[in-house]
Amino acid sequence: MSRNPRCRVAVVGATGVAGQQFLVSLDRNPWFEVVALAASERSAGKPYIDAITSPGGHVGWACEGEVPKAFAQVPVVDAVDLNLDGVDLVFSAVESDAARALEEKFAPRVPVVSTSSAFRYEDDVPVIVPGVNHDHAGIIKRQQKERGWKGFVTPIPNCTTTGLVVALAPLARTFGLRGVIVTSMQALSGAGRSPGVSAMDALDNIIPYIPKEEEKVQIEASKILGRLEGDQIVPLDIPVSATCTRVNVRDGHTLCVSASLGRPADLDEVKEALRNFGLQFVDLGLPSTPPEIIRVTEQPDRPQPRIDRLVNDGMTTVVGRIRADSVLENGVKWILLSHNTKLGAAKGAISVAEYLLHTGLV
Amino acid sequence: MSRNPRCRVAVVGATGVAGQQFLVSLDRNPWFEVVALAASERSAGKPYIDAITSPGGHVGWACEGEVPKAFAQVPVVDAVDLNLDGVDLVFSAVESDAARALEEKFAPRVPVVSTSSAFRYEDDVPVIVPGVNHDHAGIIKRQQKERGWKGFVTPIPNCTTTGLVVALAPLARTFGLRGVIVTSMQALSGAGRSPGVSAMDALDNIIPYIPKEEEKVQIEASKILGRLEGDQIVPLDIPVSATCTRVNVRDGHTLCVSASLGRPADLDEVKEALRNFGLQFVDLGLPSTPPEIIRVTEQPDRPQPRIDRLVNDGMTTVVGRIRADSVLENGVKWILLSHNTKLGAAKGAISVAEYLLHTGLV
Amino acid sequence: MSRNPRCRVAVVGATGVAGQQFLVSLDRNPWFEVVALAASERSAGKPYIDAITSPGGHVGWACEGEVPKAFAQVPVVDAVDLNLDGVDLVFSAVESDAARALEEKFAPRVPVVSTSSAFRYEDDVPVIVPGVNHDHAGIIKRQQKERGWKGFVTPIPNCTTTGLVVALAPLARTFGLRGVIVTSMQALSGAGRSPGVSAMDALDNIIPYIPKEEEKVQIEASKILGRLEGDQIVPLDIPVSATCTRVNVRDGHTLCVSASLGRPADLDEVKEALRNFGLQFVDLGLPSTPPEIIRVTEQPDRPQPRIDRLVNDGMTTVVGRIRADSVLENGVKWILLSHNTKLGAAKGAISVAEYLLHTGLV
Amino acid sequence: MSRNPRCRVAVVGATGVAGQQFLVSLDRNPWFEVVALAASERSAGKPYIDAITSPGGHVGWACEGEVPKAFAQVPVVDAVDLNLDGVDLVFSAVESDAARALEEKFAPRVPVVSTSSAFRYEDDVPVIVPGVNHDHAGIIKRQQKERGWKGFVTPIPNCTTTGLVVALAPLARTFGLRGVIVTSMQALSGAGRSPGVSAMDALDNIIPYIPKEEEKVQIEASKILGRLEGDQIVPLDIPVSATCTRVNVRDGHTLCVSASLGRPADLDEVKEALRNFGLQFVDLGLPSTPPEIIRVTEQPDRPQPRIDRLVNDGMTTVVGRIRADSVLENGVKWILLSHNTKLGAAKGAISVAEYLLHTGLV
Repeated sequence: MSRNPRCRVAVVGATGVAGQQFLVSLDRNPWFEVVALAASERSAGKPYIDAITSPGGHVGWACEGEVPKAFAQVPVVDAVDLNLDGVDLVFSAVESDAARALEEKFAPRVPVVSTSSAFRYEDDVPVIVPGVNHDHAGIIKRQQKERGWKGFVTPIPNCTTTGLVVALAPLARTFGLRGVIVTSMQALSGAGRSPGVSAMDALDNIIPYIPKEEEKVQIEASKILGRLEGDQIVPLDIPVSATCTRVNVRDGHTLCVSASLGRPADLDEVKEALRNFGLQFVDLGLPSTPPEIIRVTEQPDRPQPRIDRLVNDGMTTVVGRIRADSVLENGVKWILLSHNTKLGAAKGAISVAEYLLHTGLV
Repeated sequence: MSRNPRCRVAVVGATGVAGQQFLVSLDRNPWFEVVALAASERSAGKPYIDAITSPGGHVGWACEGEVPKAFAQVPVVDAVDLNLDGVDLVFSAVESDAARALEEKFAPRVPVVSTSSAFRYEDDVPVIVPGVNHDHAGIIKRQQKERGWKGFVTPIPNCTTTGLVVALAPLARTFGLRGVIVTSMQALSGAGRSPGVSAMDALDNIIPYIPKEEEKVQIEASKILGRLEGDQIVPLDIPVSATCTRVNVRDGHTLCVSASLGRPADLDEVKEALRNFGLQFVDLGLPSTPPEIIRVTEQPDRPQPRIDRLVNDGMTTVVGRIRADSVLENGVKWILLSHNTKLGAAKGAISVAEYLLHTGLV
Repeated sequence: MSRNPRCRVAVVGATGVAGQQFLVSLDRNPWFEVVALAASERSAGKPYIDAITSPGGHVGWACEGEVPKAFAQVPVVDAVDLNLDGVDLVFSAVESDAARALEEKFAPRVPVVSTSSAFRYEDDVPVIVPGVNHDHAGIIKRQQKERGWKGFVTPIPNCTTTGLVVALAPLARTFGLRGVIVTSMQALSGAGRSPGVSAMDALDNIIPYIPKEEEKVQIEASKILGRLEGDQIVPLDIPVSATCTRVNVRDGHTLCVSASLGRPADLDEVKEALRNFGLQFVDLGLPSTPPEIIRVTEQPDRPQPRIDRLVNDGMTTVVGRIRADSVLENGVKWILLSHNTKLGAAKGAISVAEYLLHTGLV
Repeated sequence: MSRNPRCRVAVVGATGVAGQQFLVSLDRNPWFEVVALAASERSAGKPYIDAITSPGGHVGWACEGEVPKAFAQVPVVDAVDLNLDGVDLVFSAVESDAARALEEKFAPRVPVVSTSSAFRYEDDVPVIVPGVNHDHAGIIKRQQKERGWKGFVTPIPNCTTTGLVVALAPLARTFGLRGVIVTSMQALSGAGRSPGVSAMDALDNIIPYIPKEEEKVQIEASKILGRLEGDQIVPLDIPVSATCTRVNVRDGHTLCVSASLGRPADLDEVKEALRNFGLQFVDLGLPSTPPEIIRVTEQPDRPQPRIDRLVNDGMTTVVGRIRADSVLENGVKWILLSHNTKLGAAKGAISVAEYLLHTGLV
């Protein structure tokens, strides 16, 4: 499946870590053509490579490899002045404080797929994880109608929520779900790099707290696991008890999850539900969708972030150590690994945009 | 309180990491006099410093600081030939495979306080955490009688269990306890150093599995939290669902715990129960007992292993982030930090021995 | 350029870290067909995947990604029983103690390209770095003749030497070379994984000593930088003062080098000599040769191991911070990064084999 | 030796990392009484503990242990309003941009001992390393006279210079010194924490560049190793070729040094010169002076930062791997470890102040 002509996109917040990840993923994507890079006023007018280079010559590029050649010399525009003529879609990688104002400026004219939290908690805004709840896109028409927008806003969730819901969704649908206890060991890249986590705090240490993260996981997971009824999303009303910590791992969030299912399930049934999850979505053949939404590993000491985070370029969630949980009713527990800056950020957002293109919403 | 004459001890397994930690703690302990260092046949006859030095000159000393001067030149004896005349107590830091045979050899004659798991699961053997269940020492007489031993064996628990039960004990007693879900992020030193964890596996990674650890935590926690009835320990019959992982932290196990209490408790009550725990034991004034068994921290991002592991030389368990758990009935959750090679190993064992001396059992 | 039929190779020491790296590189190589995997007696008879899997289920695979599918089920043979019929070349990744005996067994019949040091210091054995001194292959005929072998042995150097000589060679040829002072900060993977460096030693630390490494660098660099005269290699008789340390980096050796040149050279000349180096070798178009032997970076804070080690799949040496050295006569200094398990090990050896095929020596 | 009454000091820049280190060291120092804590306007008026606590409750304390009780509730004053009545000495831990103006404000009235570089390169300002060149204090009178100051300024050097000169000084005096090549592997704490090094840059990496560091080492080392002639310091006019890198170590700078001596010296002579260095200074019995300025280790794999950095509370420089350097004339090389935030920062400055008190200059 190829698209002709390609969808023309602007990347807003292009100089930050999340924005850079957009560029890396878009550089190789057959469906999108990047027609504008936008950032703050400070970067405006500079070629992209200069905008991320310090006066001392340090290139502030946080991704693997070099700055893609296609973007190095593109002049960056001030996001508030971004000209939307000829732009079919905006990818917003703006940090949340500035995100609301900017996205509110773009969405009346073009679709905005965002990694920011600005709109996540609004009733008429879906929070989509590809393969999990793409049907929630069904409320976008309502968002457009109620707000009088030609475009719309679709944020992706917090990166910790993403990994959690990918494995919960098949269990919730197959067995029902009563409650979830999760401890996360989150990677450094989730905190960005300016300033992000100080090396002095990370080395030989765990930081047992990430501000607002646990609340986000509760609210976002309930919304994503909710069902679409007409043009409403009815959240799944279950408790999600999260403990979120930061560990000295570069990429890849590890989650230790215990879930109380709606009915007894033996472990083979659980594994089968996980393995079979999302096959129909995979069959859509969208460019950024991996061949398997979930990989179940039977190796006793897996998943490990360094080994498993790049399975299918970070778009597959790897689940291992599936065991009974002796405390919860119909309790099952597992450890999963989700790539926080691939599926959990830019590439996940691109995957959402591909689905929206596929359905004709963009 | 001082003791005169001092208790004469042999350290068996003195060349390993756990044995080295015994030496560090005993070097400054007013109650014990080290009269013998024993290890495997390979070390026998060598001065201690030579026994831990490789042919290439590398000194295999895994503790902070240098080898205590008092021990550097002491000749190491073969553990199987250890002469127990003039030995009042044996500290056993032998790895578990060899531990059973050796401890069985010593215990008929002298008390053995051990960090190994060899005898932990036997009915007439207490597994003691100082300040938590020292009353379990009450079954030692039965052990001696039934086995016809003049000495006895008292192991300390697995280091992960130690931290867990310190915080659970006051809650179990004050509110009752129905079940516990715990995720551990364990330090490298818990795996020893020969070979221990490979640096290639530890860097930028989490190892989500520690063989047999989760089973140990279930069984040992139940036993330690059990009550002494006559000369029996009746385990606390509750589910303990553990997920044990290894992180790139040198010392200090971090545990994220969710507990279902026997009755509703508000968080202030929980904190008070934790803060007041073990005050009577502290008042005994034993040399290795810290001034507080538990420290409750109100800082939002604590405990952290690098910062908090050496509170009271690693003998205090630091508990923070005490919150309600929304999934469990009467649910409370917290994060705790326990020093796995201090309270959780040699110094914990020494603290047990001090209590046994105090009670006259040694 | 393609070859038909492909060269049939056996990988000996296939289960170790170096052997695994051979498999990863050979899996994608168009010139070689792996026809046998050999290892120690312990692995013999098992499918490869089982041979590297522990009884507990841990898969001892040290490379990125999974075990290549092509090799997982191949039965491993005992290296001492390796049948050389139908084998055109042996890649030896055997650790040095066992390497001499095995290589001496194979070389009389087939060419052996080895990562071990067993034969490096013999007069009739070239130590080849592709693009640097491949002409040294000229002494192989003498080796065959003197030893009466149909095959031969060609080792690659120690991985620290490799990076050093790549940048020294063009300077030695262009300006002359009087002496070199080098401090290396070597990656963990250079020490292997069984046991390799303990995580307890690596974390928050530098190990300032690697046994025998500094001597190897002196001898091997002199030999590689030497010139072929007839069927003799005349070593470059200059002092190479090395200080070798181990740092907590997974892959990629960083070398800080100060060199005394034979004549004054300004920095632009030096950079030009580096940039132009090996272009003719590159033009041979061998499969594992990168498009640039040396990349000179002008960024002030580069090369960095995490960022630069995978330039051209680890086959390009990245050189930065080229400055005058104020102490040495005609002094120049730089920092370079060389991938120790790519160019410095298996893939470097494969590249040598490609050259030997190209020349008809294999 | 005790002092009565104690010297009353103000710590300026008390809330930063260097300032915190002053507080830790001063808390246990018998000679100094902290009478004022000063910082920027933002902290003014707040109790110290509040000044370092974020709105979210995070306590920005970068040192081991807790904030010393003696200082937690002391109100911080705005440095520009610091009242010098009743202040005998100022310790300045101000970052260099602000340091010049502030120190210029204080020095006319009271002595200022500073960790900043603001005044290091002025002709009438000594840069003192205790035990190395304390005689340079002899130019302070000239500074006071020429500037018309009652007080004065004495900075300590850059932390990398400190370790370097401690080992160079005895060799320069005993054998003469012609030139030095040094590669540093510097700890994270040298870069501070706001922002300091990002954990994403530090993990699995080396940063091969520290802005301005190499120039500082050249200039400062020459000055410190210079000789006092009358009221002039005559720098030692030798080349110092430095390569400064940042590694993932928390504390302790490791330096690999090659030196060209003024005359041939065998390694035993070198070791003796190092071991005997500073004995007279030690005999002064100043509180922060360690019992040995230099410790020479014969262990093959030492010094290591994690093991050796706290020798004598970080005030002793540990030198190991002393070998001949084959490239330099009369070449000797070694590896040394120097604690960058103890001797190399606050505690080094306190040690200087103790010497100035001892001599009557304060």
